[in-house]
Amino acid sequence: MMWHVEYRPVEPDSILSYVESYSHRDWLESNEDEGVVRFAMVGLGWWTRDEAMPAVEHSTFCRTTVVVSGSAEKAANVEDEHGSIQVGLTYDEFVAGEATDAYDAVYVCTPNARHLPFVEAAVEHDKPILCEKPMEATVERGEGIVDACEDGSTTAMIAYRMHTEPVVRRARELVRAGAVGDPVHVHGDMSQGILGWGADQWRLDPALAGYGTSVMDLGIYSINTTRFVLDRDPVAVQSMMNSDHDAFSAVPDEVAAFTVAYEDDVYGTYTASQNAHQTSHLRVVGTDGMLLIEPAFHGESSLELRVSGETVDIDGKQVDQMEEEFDYFADRLLTGRDPHGTPEHGLVDLRTLAAIYESSETGRTIEL
Amino acid sequence: MMWHVEYRPVEPDSILSYVESYSHRDWLESNEDEGVVRFAMVGLGWWTRDEAMPAVEHSTFCRTTVVVSGSAEKAANVEDEHGSIQVGLTYDEFVAGEATDAYDAVYVCTPNARHLPFVEAAVEHDKPILCEKPMEATVERGEGIVDACEDGSTTAMIAYRMHTEPVVRRARELVRAGAVGDPVHVHGDMSQGILGWGADQWRLDPALAGYGTSVMDLGIYSINTTRFVLDRDPVAVQSMMNSDHDAFSAVPDEVAAFTVAYEDDVYGTYTASQNAHQTSHLRVVGTDGMLLIEPAFHGESSLELRVSGETVDIDGKQVDQMEEEFDYFADRLLTGRDPHGTPEHGLVDLRTLAAIYESSETGRTIEL
Repeated sequence: MMWHVEYRPVEPDSILSYVESYSHRDWLESNEDEGVVRFAMVGLGWWTRDEAMPAVEHSTFCRTTVVVSGSAEKAANVEDEHGSIQVGLTYDEFVAGEATDAYDAVYVCTPNARHLPFVEAAVEHDKPILCEKPMEATVERGEGIVDACEDGSTTAMIAYRMHTEPVVRRARELVRAGAVGDPVHVHGDMSQGILGWGADQWRLDPALAGYGTSVMDLGIYSINTTRFVLDRDPVAVQSMMNSDHDAFSAVPDEVAAFTVAYEDDVYGTYTASQNAHQTSHLRVVGTDGMLLIEPAFHGESSLELRVSGETVDIDGKQVDQMEEEFDYFADRLLTGRDPHGTPEHGLVDLRTLAAIYESSETGRTIEL
Repeated sequence: MMWHVEYRPVEPDSILSYVESYSHRDWLESNEDEGVVRFAMVGLGWWTRDEAMPAVEHSTFCRTTVVVSGSAEKAANVEDEHGSIQVGLTYDEFVAGEATDAYDAVYVCTPNARHLPFVEAAVEHDKPILCEKPMEATVERGEGIVDACEDGSTTAMIAYRMHTEPVVRRARELVRAGAVGDPVHVHGDMSQGILGWGADQWRLDPALAGYGTSVMDLGIYSINTTRFVLDRDPVAVQSMMNSDHDAFSAVPDEVAAFTVAYEDDVYGTYTASQNAHQTSHLRVVGTDGMLLIEPAFHGESSLELRVSGETVDIDGKQVDQMEEEFDYFADRLLTGRDPHGTPEHGLVDLRTLAAIYESSETGRTIEL
């Protein structure tokens, strides 16, 4: 794709073929004959049950055959609800290596601070791992995941569902093609109101969530998606954060504002709150145009491009982001390729998150 | 206006009357019989000639009768072009008090670092002052303006054209009415590409512009409009900035990202660049909804409100922001009331801007 080229007559075919290929799985290399990856789902909270398992059910390359929970009863109940599931295990049984013949890969979706032992167990069982983000609760434990995966011979991916969201992939292509010129600055936000969600609030418990809640759980979307769209990594951060509501008394970031300097002095300026109206967006302004992804991170995405005085809104059909993510991971396994979101990739985010919390405490810009 | 009230049948009259009064001059108290304010325009750059003078020509209460320039020839040329102008003066003649009978008030639109002497002269001549923003190049010189105006008995206003932009006034009313709940965070940006504007680049000369260019000239819009819409003032700032292009070698902020903490721990996170695609927006997210003003600051404004699962886009008719500003100032003079944008109000911005530059140099959060 070329911009600022000499004038050519309009070719309607070009916009039609663009639209037709908009949601195309450009990452796909395997085909349906190459088999199915059977998953053990570790952690049976609402995200696994209501988002991941239905996505897997609709997927091309994935199947849920094992469910793993801290509660034997919960595992048995979920097993009963789904015909494809062969075994329900407790965490201890999973770690001990039971039923390893019944699954090919592991999806880890426990609270952040419990990812490491399950990743280590999966490596021991020689099973590929799809691990939710942030990859762990602290940098030290994230390094533990990287070390465990390096010691083993299996494939691991941190579950960044925006890497396979078509809107984000199209935005990345446009930036790479120079559509907005040189990137100058980025705005991003992910906010939501978790107090209305009921009892399951491990995200407000630092022992389970890590350094905090809004930046760890939501801010990571703005940071990681900027890294992906711009092909640039963080070099420095600063932040302010505050908790006022009683429910947030154990975490520092009921609301947070933070800035990340990326390579080439591109600045990303972000907000995140677990106690606000649900919103999300990512906006990239360059020397020659801008891109707006809004909504961005809550399961639906839409793209706007402004360039050469024109605005293009693309309301593409919405994919199931978890289905895309699971099939991407399976496709990588089936074709023997590493995913984009390696543990090393995830560790860059975790170090950035830790620095954001440190900056807020010290009132200083933190270099990475 | 009330939100979250019990269900009532829809009254179409309410939306119709809202739309009809959308651009209404709710600030207006005088009427056309109460006379005209004759202005001396000090500084005849493109903003005065192409924006302020045409606005005054179309205004209800204002007339340009005197023009003042560093160049006698330029003053004479501009005088010749406009029938209403009676006198063209040099800066020295204006300061010396020539032709004070020919004008009632003064508009100061020179480079930032030259506002103070003209404000002092206007006070000496007992003429009300409309002074462009930022009010001066440094906090010390801004304090000089406050002191001069306090010593005199005249009215002074810093020229914040967003204070009379209907979209901004409606946004302020909605926030005050609780439409978005408690404000949580704000995003703002004003960026443009001044390198394409030709020779008149005093904004890149610290001796004329002050601490820098992008934050001083553009960032002030995001900060001041947030103050106005939220009725909250800054309490702390942090920032990162960088200049890479040769044309920006004398100023630190070809691009800047900065965060302002306001009262009640509402965070505003902002960007500004004089070397980027022209964009501007202000986004306020609260506990119950959000407001988006986009475009915001480049002469056109549009409002979007998202609340209760509904989105309302209002593309109101565009006013001439400078005409609104001049008539507002004249209305205040004709009715003997102080404007919202007093010099003390402007000094809060200038102290915030200075702290933003200091934060970038020291890498520290600066309390105000």
